Amino acid sequence: MNTGILYGIGVGPGDPELLTVKAVRLIRTSDLIAIAHRDPEKCFAYRIARGAVPEIENKPVLCIDMPMTHDPKARERAYEAGAAALKQALLEGKRIAMPTLGDPTVYASFSYLAARVKRLGFAVEWVPGVPSFCASAAALGEPLVTDREMLHLIPGAEGAADALALPGTKVFMKGELNELLDALADSGTDAQAVENCGTDGQRLYRSASEIPRDAGYYLVTIVRGNET
Amino acid sequence: MNTGILYGIGVGPGDPELLTVKAVRLIRTSDLIAIAHRDPEKCFAYRIARGAVPEIENKPVLCIDMPMTHDPKARERAYEAGAAALKQALLEGKRIAMPTLGDPTVYASFSYLAARVKRLGFAVEWVPGVPSFCASAAALGEPLVTDREMLHLIPGAEGAADALALPGTKVFMKGELNELLDALADSGTDAQAVENCGTDGQRLYRSASEIPRDAGYYLVTIVRGNET
Repeated sequence: MNTGILYGIGVGPGDPELLTVKAVRLIRTSDLIAIAHRDPEKCFAYRIARGAVPEIENKPVLCIDMPMTHDPKARERAYEAGAAALKQALLEGKRIAMPTLGDPTVYASFSYLAARVKRLGFAVEWVPGVPSFCASAAALGEPLVTDREMLHLIPGAEGAADALALPGTKVFMKGELNELLDALADSGTDAQAVENCGTDGQRLYRSASEIPRDAGYYLVTIVRGNET
Repeated sequence: MNTGILYGIGVGPGDPELLTVKAVRLIRTSDLIAIAHRDPEKCFAYRIARGAVPEIENKPVLCIDMPMTHDPKARERAYEAGAAALKQALLEGKRIAMPTLGDPTVYASFSYLAARVKRLGFAVEWVPGVPSFCASAAALGEPLVTDREMLHLIPGAEGAADALALPGTKVFMKGELNELLDALADSGTDAQAVENCGTDGQRLYRSASEIPRDAGYYLVTIVRGNET
């Protein structure tokens, strides 16, 4: 019987202390680490995991190279190749831990690999983690939502103006910052933001006017509703 | 100098292994545990924290009694009384850990207490945790969102029909289940749900028709978008 299993492990947004006890245990007891990157040193999720579990360095790493492209065919090929490599290790009965930034159910490459590995008939377990938007609100010292407020997570800023009209709190992630900042200015809406949450490079922006247009990819922008 | 501090500590949705390493450390090293409940045995967040840190039982507990009411005045009085009790302990330099179900930035009583304690001039730190909706999707073995999908968190089911029309994934929490199930049936929308995520009583519902109308308060219902 094949006893291999693939764990998608949320490692939180940056601070190694935000790994869960379960994430630490499963990384520690895994046979193989899989990353969605060509190079562990450049994989943020791997570095966070190493901060919590230094002995990860003694484990073999399966690098699944993800092309930096939106071309669906190129991405499809990368996922297929990744799933094939995972399959090989799973057939050998390996327990594979795949560190995933934040939480694996929220905008993670792991989703695509997990779907393929499951279709191939192997066991997959999703281990939830602390998402960056929760950690960002915590760093700002404010709730995302209370009582009956809705929360909306908006990836990219296409249609930012429409999204700003939604009731409740809006969280913008994953880039296209100029469009978002323009939409905030046009609508006279204030915002707060956290860059590189939980790392040495963490920066807090307490108003929309403070957010630099050249902020990095790991920026979470929070627009609170007016209800409370 | 006053060195007291109030920590709002996310303990995740139910499984004690989903506490973060930081949550465990801060609970372990705290002087006092605060709970938003009259009785630790009936406080779910306290019981989860105890599962991860059994020695919590040796620490004094400050019980802040929250009336089960939507009456704003009664709630206001409870928060004021809670803040006054916390103030007293903070003046004594106590490090206070307040275990909070899921994540403290998402629908937590801690928000109200933290705002008051901060206004009184004391240090407050928010320690993020795994929210129930991430853990529920993980238990179902499916992503909440991928790529450019929006995620909407909808507390209660007032206006469920309108919310179902939003693009992307919708997560319904906190009750009024009949209205939600009616809206799902009327619109022919399928859903999945997790009850009591991460506990011995966890139940998964793979379609809307399986969700029982008498499901408990700790039910998370997920409606995936059609984009992927």
